[in-house]
Amino acid sequence: MELHVKREHSSPGEQHPNRARMLISCPDGPGIVAAVSRFLFDHGANIVQSDQYTMDPSGGMFFMRIEFDLPKLEQRMEQLQAEFGAIADQFEMNWQMFNVSHKKRLAIFVSKEDHCLVELLWQWQAGDLDADIALVVSNHADMKEYVESFGIPYYHIPVTADTKAEAERRQLKVVGEDIDVIILARYMQIISPSFIERYKNRVINIHHSFLPAFIGGNPYAQAYRRGVKIIGATAHYVTEELDGGPIIEQDVQRVSHGDDVGELKRIGRTIERVVLARAVKWHIEDRILVHQNKTVVFN
Amino acid sequence: MELHVKREHSSPGEQHPNRARMLISCPDGPGIVAAVSRFLFDHGANIVQSDQYTMDPSGGMFFMRIEFDLPKLEQRMEQLQAEFGAIADQFEMNWQMFNVSHKKRLAIFVSKEDHCLVELLWQWQAGDLDADIALVVSNHADMKEYVESFGIPYYHIPVTADTKAEAERRQLKVVGEDIDVIILARYMQIISPSFIERYKNRVINIHHSFLPAFIGGNPYAQAYRRGVKIIGATAHYVTEELDGGPIIEQDVQRVSHGDDVGELKRIGRTIERVVLARAVKWHIEDRILVHQNKTVVFN
Amino acid sequence: MELHVKREHSSPGEQHPNRARMLISCPDGPGIVAAVSRFLFDHGANIVQSDQYTMDPSGGMFFMRIEFDLPKLEQRMEQLQAEFGAIADQFEMNWQMFNVSHKKRLAIFVSKEDHCLVELLWQWQAGDLDADIALVVSNHADMKEYVESFGIPYYHIPVTADTKAEAERRQLKVVGEDIDVIILARYMQIISPSFIERYKNRVINIHHSFLPAFIGGNPYAQAYRRGVKIIGATAHYVTEELDGGPIIEQDVQRVSHGDDVGELKRIGRTIERVVLARAVKWHIEDRILVHQNKTVVFN
Amino acid sequence: MELHVKREHSSPGEQHPNRARMLISCPDGPGIVAAVSRFLFDHGANIVQSDQYTMDPSGGMFFMRIEFDLPKLEQRMEQLQAEFGAIADQFEMNWQMFNVSHKKRLAIFVSKEDHCLVELLWQWQAGDLDADIALVVSNHADMKEYVESFGIPYYHIPVTADTKAEAERRQLKVVGEDIDVIILARYMQIISPSFIERYKNRVINIHHSFLPAFIGGNPYAQAYRRGVKIIGATAHYVTEELDGGPIIEQDVQRVSHGDDVGELKRIGRTIERVVLARAVKWHIEDRILVHQNKTVVFN
Repeated sequence: MELHVKREHSSPGEQHPNRARMLISCPDGPGIVAAVSRFLFDHGANIVQSDQYTMDPSGGMFFMRIEFDLPKLEQRMEQLQAEFGAIADQFEMNWQMFNVSHKKRLAIFVSKEDHCLVELLWQWQAGDLDADIALVVSNHADMKEYVESFGIPYYHIPVTADTKAEAERRQLKVVGEDIDVIILARYMQIISPSFIERYKNRVINIHHSFLPAFIGGNPYAQAYRRGVKIIGATAHYVTEELDGGPIIEQDVQRVSHGDDVGELKRIGRTIERVVLARAVKWHIEDRILVHQNKTVVFN
Repeated sequence: MELHVKREHSSPGEQHPNRARMLISCPDGPGIVAAVSRFLFDHGANIVQSDQYTMDPSGGMFFMRIEFDLPKLEQRMEQLQAEFGAIADQFEMNWQMFNVSHKKRLAIFVSKEDHCLVELLWQWQAGDLDADIALVVSNHADMKEYVESFGIPYYHIPVTADTKAEAERRQLKVVGEDIDVIILARYMQIISPSFIERYKNRVINIHHSFLPAFIGGNPYAQAYRRGVKIIGATAHYVTEELDGGPIIEQDVQRVSHGDDVGELKRIGRTIERVVLARAVKWHIEDRILVHQNKTVVFN
Repeated sequence: MELHVKREHSSPGEQHPNRARMLISCPDGPGIVAAVSRFLFDHGANIVQSDQYTMDPSGGMFFMRIEFDLPKLEQRMEQLQAEFGAIADQFEMNWQMFNVSHKKRLAIFVSKEDHCLVELLWQWQAGDLDADIALVVSNHADMKEYVESFGIPYYHIPVTADTKAEAERRQLKVVGEDIDVIILARYMQIISPSFIERYKNRVINIHHSFLPAFIGGNPYAQAYRRGVKIIGATAHYVTEELDGGPIIEQDVQRVSHGDDVGELKRIGRTIERVVLARAVKWHIEDRILVHQNKTVVFN
Repeated sequence: MELHVKREHSSPGEQHPNRARMLISCPDGPGIVAAVSRFLFDHGANIVQSDQYTMDPSGGMFFMRIEFDLPKLEQRMEQLQAEFGAIADQFEMNWQMFNVSHKKRLAIFVSKEDHCLVELLWQWQAGDLDADIALVVSNHADMKEYVESFGIPYYHIPVTADTKAEAERRQLKVVGEDIDVIILARYMQIISPSFIERYKNRVINIHHSFLPAFIGGNPYAQAYRRGVKIIGATAHYVTEELDGGPIIEQDVQRVSHGDDVGELKRIGRTIERVVLARAVKWHIEDRILVHQNKTVVFN
């Protein structure tokens, strides 16, 4: 039974089999762009996109994203990375290099509310999410058959106050070592600090309010009580501080006095879906750099 | 196999079993609101929501939407309508009265692009679309299993230049007499004037541009060529004039020079989904009045 | 010297010399709309606009705004109000009736930042603000000549910690008894509770953040530190709770990591101007009802 | 008399006296970024911002904007430009280099509607528009005293069908040779092709609709008749094709059936002001490249 029609258009990696991306952050200083672009040019690479941002020209931080094509990337990437080390050391860079053909592997965590999961699955199936959805983890069994109908493994791991530590061990086991990013798609359990530390800046949460307003539980009820005229949702990397991590993306919609809490939730579901999907897309496309508690997003 | 978890919260009709809605349009004049509200009061009804709009106080048109509760509505509605006839005649009203408990029946037409259909099905399943999706019609077979997995009949009616008339006869037959509204959810075939006439102001189309810009085919390619900085989508009632019917709802999103046609389409899909779903919701909730080529939307 | 060209199009009161508006709030119950509309009809009034909202049909609050034309309004209004008393008593209404021809009188308070004041003066001069700007009060002298060039009195009342009470006495004196609404157009001094009580729901403030985020001082610096992707402004009625009064209007704009605090302020100034001007317009047009800590805005 | 309080914060040129900007467009190919950044590095410049965009990596166009600091820029800029010629020739570049300290000189053309002019003057006076407003030209005398109160020359040059050619000669004369950009701030006369050719991609117009919808006259009346749910404004470079030039910026606002043409105009005025001011700001900051009939905007 062919329930879900996978779209056929080619992925970025298929369209550009020799494309790579670099993310760089380092203290600002003269010659960084020249050194990096010279390095790439000398190795025969062609820069197809480059974005750069300096937080404060005198003594601030420098952030860069480069997309380039290099013939025979697959064979040459390891050596390219090794040789880039000298430049990286010179400028004290934090840096990463990605082969666009290597799709990122996602794990999605979900509880009862399914709209964010459904959106990610639909975008993935439509070919709009250039990643592999490796698995779904939930503390409820509700979505099992739906997720499995896409051919995606579903791990039902119940969480109670007593079993929390054991549940997290099981989660870590199924997630394993080769997951690039974990998406909390309305996953309503607190993640432990050690879990967060292990996937630093790689756990994306969607909070159903326009942060920093309405931190914590029942943000739509809070918004209704305060009588706001616009509601929103926020995608952020998870840190130890509840709803306090680096914000990746936010969006909003106008509401009126006539919208009760149920209606705010209904309107909010669409904002949440769209905001989370955008944040995931940007992460997958290596568009996000994190510095202290803020993100630089090149999009 | 329980693929789709139907949400359990109660519908407006279940919450308010005695609720009715009226839509009225007539030439403006003194005493209309007084006559209608007096009529309802005398029959024991309680008005819970009332919206009213006069296009031009001197000699213009008057539009009204009333939501009211009436004990034993089901048994009394027929007589209520009969007795309202006198007021309607006096003020030359076009009017309709709806029992909220009687869910509207939808037919969805779709071609290859599935995002609008998927959105409507998801909102319906989530309990956000208070209607019955009676059937789906498509000129392609792609979505058959997916739609049927919701328990919804799917009619694959191919359309070619030669078989157009015959296809439309088959469509009319499967749609039948008791469909309230037809949704063209990216249905890419032209509907004949006689078909449109038969479902006047009851066929909703989503056009993938911010009308009246980019009428006709390939609006995203047109938008790309023109270099617009914002793209949009438009839901409208279908009339004989291509993309020229009364606009129900529009929305937009910012784009940049960096977005190629494929990216415009991807961004546009989310706008289309949201705009069409809003228009359908408002139609279902009897919020739309059509006058000449414009809509009055009470929301 | 004719510095400012006053636009010549006629005001609502000139266009409709017999137009009145009513604002009503009361416990919901059957027959309210019928009673009010019957009352107006029996007195020869024609309702040109009516909006109504019930917060919760069973036992909630009912809010209504009616705009109507009544021949010889000026002479008959006093008696109309007296006679309406019976209905008001029956339904325990809070209500107000306004003659549209009687322009509201505004007092604007401002400190150093002039953009909100400039906007209000420009809209007023353009004929878009149907009110009289009776006076401007400031704790600085900077804007004196500019304001007086519009023919508007400017009162420079310095405020220091020591002179606060005396300054407020002087403010109350210049404002006097016949000011309808006070606009805090970036007035950076705290108003005392007794002052607020005296003009309850008649002091409008613009706060330069998307409340309830970033209450208090330097909200743009707070927003920068938190790394939000959207900033906003909020117009609200002033209550004793700092930045906690009923929200009238909010709006937002997207920002990026590249916008420093200065740029956030620059972007924010346009949001503040627009949001405050909208709130003032709605107040002037009697579109706002306050219930507990929330507003019902009929627009 | 000090009517207008000029804000005191320093301009970008004062903050960064050695800052320059480059705009480059050329056919794409390997080594462009490396060559440019190497050139700048070798001359002792520090790149503080760099943006780049390739329309299509294989055989497309390449666009670049660079902001850099170079000690003793004022003295060295001429030679820098001369030496850059070799690189420019090699890659067939169209390019410009700007000294940020040299403020651009603006001429503003206006007719009767003053809101866009008022906005530009206010932003300029607030220090948000880093340019010199050299003069204002109008076919009406209305704004003369207001503009002159800012110390800006005002040229009243009436235009009739008979005097059109003569009026344009006078306009060209007062504009002279050293104006960088002409702003049509709701200037309602057609500019001749020879005038446009002379200031190619340096005449910015604000059209009061969301182009390409509602080209030509009375766009708000057109929008009202079509019943759109969102209106907008468009800033674009003027070309020979009416309302057909490269779009710089657009923005929109939601409207409803209740907004008549007058209300659409009122709402539209704020959109027009904001959109035009943004376009002017981007032009002044050398953020816009024009290719064929489209703009690349690095912001």
